[in-house]
Amino acid sequence: MTEHKNNIRMTADEVTVFLEKIFPQVDMGGRVIVIEEIVPLGARIRMIYHERLLRPGGTISGPSMFMLADVGVYAALLGAIGPIPLAVTTSLNINFLRKPAANDMLARVRILKLGKRLAVAEAALYSDGEEAMVAQATATYSIPPETTEVV
Amino acid sequence: MTEHKNNIRMTADEVTVFLEKIFPQVDMGGRVIVIEEIVPLGARIRMIYHERLLRPGGTISGPSMFMLADVGVYAALLGAIGPIPLAVTTSLNINFLRKPAANDMLARVRILKLGKRLAVAEAALYSDGEEAMVAQATATYSIPPETTEVV
Amino acid sequence: MTEHKNNIRMTADEVTVFLEKIFPQVDMGGRVIVIEEIVPLGARIRMIYHERLLRPGGTISGPSMFMLADVGVYAALLGAIGPIPLAVTTSLNINFLRKPAANDMLARVRILKLGKRLAVAEAALYSDGEEAMVAQATATYSIPPETTEVV
Amino acid sequence: MTEHKNNIRMTADEVTVFLEKIFPQVDMGGRVIVIEEIVPLGARIRMIYHERLLRPGGTISGPSMFMLADVGVYAALLGAIGPIPLAVTTSLNINFLRKPAANDMLARVRILKLGKRLAVAEAALYSDGEEAMVAQATATYSIPPETTEVV
Repeated sequence: MTEHKNNIRMTADEVTVFLEKIFPQVDMGGRVIVIEEIVPLGARIRMIYHERLLRPGGTISGPSMFMLADVGVYAALLGAIGPIPLAVTTSLNINFLRKPAANDMLARVRILKLGKRLAVAEAALYSDGEEAMVAQATATYSIPPETTEVV
Repeated sequence: MTEHKNNIRMTADEVTVFLEKIFPQVDMGGRVIVIEEIVPLGARIRMIYHERLLRPGGTISGPSMFMLADVGVYAALLGAIGPIPLAVTTSLNINFLRKPAANDMLARVRILKLGKRLAVAEAALYSDGEEAMVAQATATYSIPPETTEVV
Repeated sequence: MTEHKNNIRMTADEVTVFLEKIFPQVDMGGRVIVIEEIVPLGARIRMIYHERLLRPGGTISGPSMFMLADVGVYAALLGAIGPIPLAVTTSLNINFLRKPAANDMLARVRILKLGKRLAVAEAALYSDGEEAMVAQATATYSIPPETTEVV
Repeated sequence: MTEHKNNIRMTADEVTVFLEKIFPQVDMGGRVIVIEEIVPLGARIRMIYHERLLRPGGTISGPSMFMLADVGVYAALLGAIGPIPLAVTTSLNINFLRKPAANDMLARVRILKLGKRLAVAEAALYSDGEEAMVAQATATYSIPPETTEVV
C-alpha cells in the first residue's frame, strides 16, 4: 500500500470518462461533474450549475452537495488506487455552513486514510469564486478485498 | 414548546402539498415523495421508484437516499411545528448498511429533540417490503428565531 | 455470518469480565461499566455514577458519554460475535440532546449491520429513571479479517 | 459578528486558565490539556501523555481523543468569541484513522463557521512528532443567545 500513496493511478480525464461510463445519471442533458485535477491523495471536482440542482430560494440543494462530496471522494480514490467500480460509501457526514450561490460549485478532496479495506476522506465545498466554505463532508469508503487483483 | 410536542400541526396531506409548493424539483415528471403518515414527533415517507434515482448496479443512489432522509426529517418537523419554510439542515450523518432494491423506499423518522433553536431527528430507511434497514441517518435542523410568530 | 445473527456468543457476565480484563482503565477505583443485558444484536449497559464522570454544572461529561456509547457498542458486538479483542472503532457520531443528571446512565445498543468486515450500531443514552433520550450515537467498528478463526 | 472573526478575544494563557477553572476534571493529578496557540479562528492544543489516557495495546483511548477534540474546539471558540461558559457541544463526529503512540497528542482546530447561534469546527489530531493524522473530528457547538451581552 505504501508505494501507491504518492502516485496517481488515473488522470483527471481518465476519471471523468470512467465516471460517465458508470454513472450515466450524472449527465443531466449535459455534463454536470468535471474532474478538474487529481493530485496525490486528493482531487478538485467541479459541479456545473444547472437549475435541477437548486432548492427553494435559488440555492444549490442538499442532495446536490451530497452528490458533489460523494462523487468527489470517489474520484480522488480512483486517482489514488485506480479503476475500482465496487468501492462503496459506507458513511458520510456533512455540515452545511453557508447558503451557496446559484453558481458552479467546487469540491476540494483530501484522502486522510487509504487502508486496504477502508478509506476516509474529507471534502470542502465552495461556490466558485467565493472564499468561504459552503459545506464540509467526511466520507468513509469500503474497498473490496479483490482490489489488489483489479488494480 | 412543551405543549406542541404531542400535537400534530399539519396532516400528511398538508405536508405533501406544502413540500410540492416549496420543492418543485421533487417532482421529476410525477410525484416522487409522498408523506404517508404524520404522528406525534414522527413521520413515514415514501420515495416512489423512478429510474432517475438509480446508480450503477441498479440500486438507489446515495444522493437519492440522502434526499429521502432529509425531506423525511423536514416533513416530520413540519408535522410537529407547522409550516416553517426557513428551517434548514445544518448537518446530516448517514450510514449505508445494505444495497437497496430498485423499488420504492420508505423512511421512518423520529424526532429525538425539538428545541427552540435546534431539532435532531433520525431516519431509518427501508426498501418497500423488506425488513432489513438499508440506511440510517441522523440530521440536525436549525429553526429560525421568528418561528414562534410564524407558527 | 448469517447464522450467528440470532445467537448470543457471550453472556452479559462474560462480556463484563472480558471488558475488565482488556480495559482495566474502565475501573476508576470501583466498577464503572456494567453490562446488564445481552440480547440478539443488542445490549443494555449501565455507567455507574462517579464524580470523575462529571463536567461543570454537575452533568455527565461528553467524553464519559462517548465512552459509554463506544463501550456499549463493543459489548453488543462481543455478545454477537464472541471475544474479538482487535475490533476497533473507525468512526463515531454523537448528538447531545439534553443535559444528563448526576446519576447512572444507561445505553441501549442495537446492531444495525453485522458484516464480515464492518459493523454499524446505534446507542441511545438515558439518565437512569428518565424517559427522554440524553444522547444518540452511531458507531462503525472494523472487524479484523482473522475473526472467523478467532471465533 | 463580522468584526470579531479576525480578532482574538482571549490569549492561549487566558484560555488555559479559564478551562482549568471550569473543567477541574481535566487536571488528573497534573495538567493534561495545554492550549499552545490561539490564532484567528483556530487553535493548537496539546494533551500531555498520562497512562490514564491509554486503552489496551498501549494506545491513547477513544474517549481521550474525543476529549482532546472537544476541548480543542471549545478553546478555539473561547479564543474567537471570549469567555462563554455556556456554549455546549451539540454533535461531534470523529473518524479514527491510525493508532496513536503512547505519547503527547496535538489537536489543530479550525473554525469553519462562527454564526450567532451555531459554530462548526474541525479538529485534526496527531501524535506529537508524527506527520500522519491520527483522528479527524467535526464538532457543532450551540452558542447561547445571551452571548452578545456576556462578551
